[in-house]
Amino acid sequence: MYKLKSTIKKITPLNENAMKLARKRQDTLTKPRGSLGRLEELSIQIAGITRNAIPIIKEKRIITIAGDHGVVEEGVSTCPSKVTTQMIYNFINGSAGINVLSRHIGAKVIIVDMGAFSDIAHENLIVKKIKNGTNNIAKGPAMSREDAIYSIESGIEIFEEAYKNGLDIVGTGDMGIGNTTPSSAIVSAIIGAKVEEVTGRGTGLDDSGLKNKIEVIKTALKINQPDKNDGIDVLSKVGGFEIGGIAGVIIGAAAANVPVVIDGFISSAGALIASKIAPLSINYMISAHNSVEIGHNAIMKHLGLKPILDLNMRLGEGTGAALGIGIVEASVKLLGEMATFDEANVTEGKIHKINNAS
Amino acid sequence: MYKLKSTIKKITPLNENAMKLARKRQDTLTKPRGSLGRLEELSIQIAGITRNAIPIIKEKRIITIAGDHGVVEEGVSTCPSKVTTQMIYNFINGSAGINVLSRHIGAKVIIVDMGAFSDIAHENLIVKKIKNGTNNIAKGPAMSREDAIYSIESGIEIFEEAYKNGLDIVGTGDMGIGNTTPSSAIVSAIIGAKVEEVTGRGTGLDDSGLKNKIEVIKTALKINQPDKNDGIDVLSKVGGFEIGGIAGVIIGAAAANVPVVIDGFISSAGALIASKIAPLSINYMISAHNSVEIGHNAIMKHLGLKPILDLNMRLGEGTGAALGIGIVEASVKLLGEMATFDEANVTEGKIHKINNAS
Repeated sequence: MYKLKSTIKKITPLNENAMKLARKRQDTLTKPRGSLGRLEELSIQIAGITRNAIPIIKEKRIITIAGDHGVVEEGVSTCPSKVTTQMIYNFINGSAGINVLSRHIGAKVIIVDMGAFSDIAHENLIVKKIKNGTNNIAKGPAMSREDAIYSIESGIEIFEEAYKNGLDIVGTGDMGIGNTTPSSAIVSAIIGAKVEEVTGRGTGLDDSGLKNKIEVIKTALKINQPDKNDGIDVLSKVGGFEIGGIAGVIIGAAAANVPVVIDGFISSAGALIASKIAPLSINYMISAHNSVEIGHNAIMKHLGLKPILDLNMRLGEGTGAALGIGIVEASVKLLGEMATFDEANVTEGKIHKINNAS
Repeated sequence: MYKLKSTIKKITPLNENAMKLARKRQDTLTKPRGSLGRLEELSIQIAGITRNAIPIIKEKRIITIAGDHGVVEEGVSTCPSKVTTQMIYNFINGSAGINVLSRHIGAKVIIVDMGAFSDIAHENLIVKKIKNGTNNIAKGPAMSREDAIYSIESGIEIFEEAYKNGLDIVGTGDMGIGNTTPSSAIVSAIIGAKVEEVTGRGTGLDDSGLKNKIEVIKTALKINQPDKNDGIDVLSKVGGFEIGGIAGVIIGAAAANVPVVIDGFISSAGALIASKIAPLSINYMISAHNSVEIGHNAIMKHLGLKPILDLNMRLGEGTGAALGIGIVEASVKLLGEMATFDEANVTEGKIHKINNAS
């Protein structure tokens, strides 16, 4: 608990001065003011996060955390839990979606096992095992309060280890068969939305499967009675180890003034937990994309985040985060590398200058 | 005219077999079916365009074409026409938005002068001058029918020269102070939309400036009476040299089975011209992003295109196309590099397999 508390204490508001300078520079670059739209906003946010009016993004990491879920025994997923372990091997082999997209943007993937049912040992896998899978949330809490804290602190630790080796931006990712169920439960608990409104089909449930999933989540919330004002309580009652880990990565990144790009639904559930524990961390979050999972939009509204991309994706792993990082990096390069009107000797367009035309 | 006709003849429908194979492969990759959303669709379109079930994108080019517009003397832009020339120098120096974004995605920019008022000579500039600026469309046709054809054929030629050196995907771009005015005129003429509904503020007109611009476009349409069923007539009456050039690049790319990523509003006006002259070319188009210019959406609906990105951009130059190419390339890498379920020994999730869980 000491690590969590001391890390949260380090999180401060964004640097207003760096943002002001970045805004000012944007307005002198050789383009009509505001014509780079969202890219301008992103570059300014990065300036505020990094305390650097002309930030540089070179070292990029995706942290993909795996965990299994006891609630899968309730039939909430179309996939058996063993797929979590199989996919960890797929990550290690560099053959999954997240590996391809990380290579595409020039990022490294950090693969972490925080709670798979199986035990895997491999030099390319970081093992921070809290437990072999959570307990079935339809029957009781997912994990103890201690383990919830432990999962968040482990996420902070993973971030810090990556940060030591140099890191300018981090993306979150998840792998865990069944983990849309705890994620929907978290959203419903914290935001107070109806379970039906924040529960989707995950990997591809049919109508009866979706109905069952909704009932399971309702049961889990009724039995566990998570306290919506206590993020750690919500995580321990209806969460998952990888979700706690993701919350930890976010809190760690915010404490180190590093922008953190949030992947899809599961990562956003982690962001929601982080926001309850460390509200200032929201400023350090960038939403990568609009997930197909219907609960995602509710989280975005609650946190005031606007996804960069909308590509109808729902894979997780950090795949959306990878593409989002590519766009954020582009925004920062534009801020730093474009010539100003003066440098390029370009006449700045201004209303009422139209009489100078041609 | 021979070049244009012979190039159009080479354009064929997309290859159904390559698309079928790509679709089939997508469904065997280690992810829930359809979970990569738009990225799956894009990769399948590229397969159909390139006739390759596992396409490869390596060589990327953005072709940015500049031209000036006589109609600027009507006060339709906040910028003086000399900015077109200044920006060409900015492109040559590698300091404009399109240069930064092209470097970001690993593409080369091909800069072309097809109609700037000034004459520029530089080893990094391709000069295919039709004329030094169009005529004022509020007073008569922008150019002769011959010059309209010449601009399209020059665009084809520029593409073909780039293609000779190896090219897997091409993006379009424009530079031309005042060119939202002919673009809105083209959209209104071809789609039949009210001028008010397809005319925006360009680089930043105020209310009275916008009102004037709308009146100028109405006058241009009234005086010139473009024939909406004849793309060449519309281009010659109310178009621009860079818009004709962009139409040519699109037609050239389609004839060579090369995917062409359409930038924003001006490029889409070029795409609209191309679609009238060579309807099959639409299949080869990929819309990069949703421009802020209000006429853009009307073109997308008319052509049945769905922009990849929506980042509130309105810079032109090919900046949106560059980001779009980055996403398309990612989609193709996913198709080619992800492991299949068999390769990765991953259990495929299927409805009714839930009893196998854990």
